[in-house]
Amino acid sequence: MHGPDQDDLKPSLHFWFDFASTYSYLSAMHVETVARDRGVNLIWHPFLLGPIFRKQGWETSPFNLMPAKGRYMWRDMERQCEVLGLPLVQPDPFPQTSLLAARIAHAGRNEPWIGAFVRAVYYSEFGAGLDISDPSLLAGMLMEAGANAKGMMTKAESMDVKIGLRAAVSEAEMQGIFGAPTFVTGQGELFWGHDRLEQALDEALKLTD
Amino acid sequence: MHGPDQDDLKPSLHFWFDFASTYSYLSAMHVETVARDRGVNLIWHPFLLGPIFRKQGWETSPFNLMPAKGRYMWRDMERQCEVLGLPLVQPDPFPQTSLLAARIAHAGRNEPWIGAFVRAVYYSEFGAGLDISDPSLLAGMLMEAGANAKGMMTKAESMDVKIGLRAAVSEAEMQGIFGAPTFVTGQGELFWGHDRLEQALDEALKLTD
Repeated sequence: MHGPDQDDLKPSLHFWFDFASTYSYLSAMHVETVARDRGVNLIWHPFLLGPIFRKQGWETSPFNLMPAKGRYMWRDMERQCEVLGLPLVQPDPFPQTSLLAARIAHAGRNEPWIGAFVRAVYYSEFGAGLDISDPSLLAGMLMEAGANAKGMMTKAESMDVKIGLRAAVSEAEMQGIFGAPTFVTGQGELFWGHDRLEQALDEALKLTD
Repeated sequence: MHGPDQDDLKPSLHFWFDFASTYSYLSAMHVETVARDRGVNLIWHPFLLGPIFRKQGWETSPFNLMPAKGRYMWRDMERQCEVLGLPLVQPDPFPQTSLLAARIAHAGRNEPWIGAFVRAVYYSEFGAGLDISDPSLLAGMLMEAGANAKGMMTKAESMDVKIGLRAAVSEAEMQGIFGAPTFVTGQGELFWGHDRLEQALDEALKLTD
């Protein structure tokens, strides 16, 4: 038996993200720092929106299905990135195929390097316009983040991880998640969108007062 | 000939709203005050999302078509209303039929009582759960706002106003509007959602610096 470690005593916030999601980029780039500064334990949940969108009958991003909304989203992203000091390049194609990156992140979701890896993927995709389905790019980012790149690339293709990521998508659906980024407090309060990050942190902290 | 009136010299912000839209309620209840405090001339644009949604193949609100998104929206509205000190009642049915209210608001969009009327409609609908398709309710709100209620009810059913509102929907589409509330600056910068109201005001003011 062992006592609870320090993280168990801290309020926690679950961060659900899809690597293909534009607004998740805004959150991913600074959520770890912001959570740490406020004493909130961040739990990383990579998942896929594709299977959830397909149940709605959508075969691609809603930003592609609704051209006016898509045009607006890119303009809004430009403005938000300017405020946050982030570069923005539209990846081609959009959305990117995020399956392999999501499997790697799922496999490493509790590792100390997960934040650095997630940021590297988002930055490559939306800051530099690189193709995040490229295994050699992903392996390089794992190395830079301090992971065992070769071991992780093998693990990411294992049946355990494939099934585990599929289970994460089902868990997202069961929790009522329909978009990304989504923040869920320890008590199950859902907050959708980067605009709700501060409110989600407030709520996570309130519940432990 | 006469010189430009004072409002022509002020920065302006166009406020596009549908009476059936939940998040428009949050903006509508205080946008006039906020704009006045910041020296921005507010221009009211009642319109209808229905015809725009139908072109997407949606026969009702996306919040009804996507149950998880709908459940989230009502919870999020509860939280946002609490922050803003607004009551919240889910109208039944949702969405409400907003056609008559929109025709009245279109007919009176440049009248001094438009803000009071718009707030009365939203408050009745989302603060008290009343049926805003009821002509006698709308006539009463016109009277309270200080309008010629009988004259406005007749005008709202005129061919001019029916065609004018339809033209407003077309104008919204041409401007790239796909949801409500939407704020458009004098220079044509679009901001979608109550969360962007402050940024829209900042932008409206920036352009006149």
